[in-house]
Amino acid sequence: MKSPEGFRQEALARLRTEIPGAAIIAASGGIDSTVAALLTQEAIGERSHALFVDTGLLRAGEVERVSAFFEVSELSFTVIDASDRFFAALKGVVDPEEKRRRIGATFIRLFEEHAQRWQTDRLVQGTIAPDWIESGGALRDTIKTHHNVGGIPADSDLKLVEPLRDLYKDEVRELARHLGVPDADRQPFPGPGLAVRVHGAVTPERVARARAANAVVEAEVDRAIAEGTLKRPWQYFAVLLPVRTVGVMGDNRVHGEAVSIRVVDSIDAMTASAVSLPPEVLRRIAERITRELRGDVTRVLYDVTDKPPATIEWE
Amino acid sequence: MKSPEGFRQEALARLRTEIPGAAIIAASGGIDSTVAALLTQEAIGERSHALFVDTGLLRAGEVERVSAFFEVSELSFTVIDASDRFFAALKGVVDPEEKRRRIGATFIRLFEEHAQRWQTDRLVQGTIAPDWIESGGALRDTIKTHHNVGGIPADSDLKLVEPLRDLYKDEVRELARHLGVPDADRQPFPGPGLAVRVHGAVTPERVARARAANAVVEAEVDRAIAEGTLKRPWQYFAVLLPVRTVGVMGDNRVHGEAVSIRVVDSIDAMTASAVSLPPEVLRRIAERITRELRGDVTRVLYDVTDKPPATIEWE
Repeated sequence: MKSPEGFRQEALARLRTEIPGAAIIAASGGIDSTVAALLTQEAIGERSHALFVDTGLLRAGEVERVSAFFEVSELSFTVIDASDRFFAALKGVVDPEEKRRRIGATFIRLFEEHAQRWQTDRLVQGTIAPDWIESGGALRDTIKTHHNVGGIPADSDLKLVEPLRDLYKDEVRELARHLGVPDADRQPFPGPGLAVRVHGAVTPERVARARAANAVVEAEVDRAIAEGTLKRPWQYFAVLLPVRTVGVMGDNRVHGEAVSIRVVDSIDAMTASAVSLPPEVLRRIAERITRELRGDVTRVLYDVTDKPPATIEWE
Repeated sequence: MKSPEGFRQEALARLRTEIPGAAIIAASGGIDSTVAALLTQEAIGERSHALFVDTGLLRAGEVERVSAFFEVSELSFTVIDASDRFFAALKGVVDPEEKRRRIGATFIRLFEEHAQRWQTDRLVQGTIAPDWIESGGALRDTIKTHHNVGGIPADSDLKLVEPLRDLYKDEVRELARHLGVPDADRQPFPGPGLAVRVHGAVTPERVARARAANAVVEAEVDRAIAEGTLKRPWQYFAVLLPVRTVGVMGDNRVHGEAVSIRVVDSIDAMTASAVSLPPEVLRRIAERITRELRGDVTRVLYDVTDKPPATIEWE
């Protein structure tokens, strides 16, 4: 990207060519898709329809937060409540790739229905370079099937429009600032949501645990940042693990699950390093999670692995 | 315990009463059973037979280290190689209580065979107070089925002798020093060995991974102690978790398992607190484990939970 303004002008011209009529936009609330949505809205005006899907796999307060974020960004959008459909699609699935496939397919069916409603076949996504580079090609093995890449099945008429596909994360952030998007340092959140942070079976109950644990991690890391004891990390979240481990509650033995905390620094998500959290922050996170999820979660682990050899997400 | 010497005299008298003929001793190499064995040897001399069982679930170099330890402690002992029997007994078992039952039963059968050989029915064990208090009674729920408590099935003729059953850990350590046992601060190691540190299926391959990861944790913590950056913790070890997590190896995606590191301080094992390891020690442990178990283990987690709400061991 030479300059944000130069990129913007080229992107607007390309979008006007690639979208002859209307377009729907997959808007996750993340920085990438928000920037893609704003460029599309600027390019084709009222013919653009940004859709925010409530999958039931979102973080605590996410719908409200994303809605507010879109409003300050002056993006027109619609919220679609589809949690029942997603939980139904995920029932009994533990394989992470299968989870992504089911979630991707459910997204596509939803988008098809809404594309039909707006009489278009164009779907705008916020795909950026690391997404498709990691999703494989001739030269690379597949690192991860990103839900927003290649998720269009052969029998679908949807055509993808990806205005940011040549950009890296830091370039998207620069562009976001240029477009006046507030708080461009917002926590990234994966397309498949808490489903990839709930290792094993994805049930409403287990998602609720992952959501509560994640809220504690975000709150305590944000508090440490506010208190000046921690520089804002690239990403921080909780993962629920399907391992039963013994714990003590009063004089009783209980079998709870374990939660793993992931806090990493990175420049472009291609590599990442585990952040050394201050001990008192870790202690408070462990204490709060085991207290607020009393009996359900009895063990809190801190992920100390860099990428490579691990990845940022678990699945 | 009033004084170590007072306790010793009383214990010797009791042992001579409780053991009319010969006795076999379950000697794990831990401080408790070593002290129990030494008292028994002192009480009944050549009629005592300390047995050290190589279960195939021991730490790296354990047989050599325990043998050397017994030799300096002037304890007569026999090593029994029974790893095939233990792996056969554990085949297909993932439930931790069932693992302990199978291991306990295999121990008992072995001890019965050896008791028969020495024409006795007396089995000396190093049970201490927290073992049986946590194993339950009228007033307490069962926290953990310790393999060395209540493991005698109804159809067995073995009679337990437990000279240390009223002592706490710090008292046993004091007694050990009094008896001239070297390095009384030796790492405690559970009776069921690496089986309870291999969450999920216990196969020779997975035990080998847990053993290698554990050796790294012990070596790096010992190095930090030697370098003066860490006070010797109460206990430190690795646990292999049956969760497949994605990792990166060159340009390829790999699915490895995760290892959890446990380092705790405690006075009596009834409560414990997670130790804040220096970040560079954690980093070196993570780097070494993922390198030495390349592809098999892709993620290293640090357990930050106190007891309660967690326990020291996972199972």
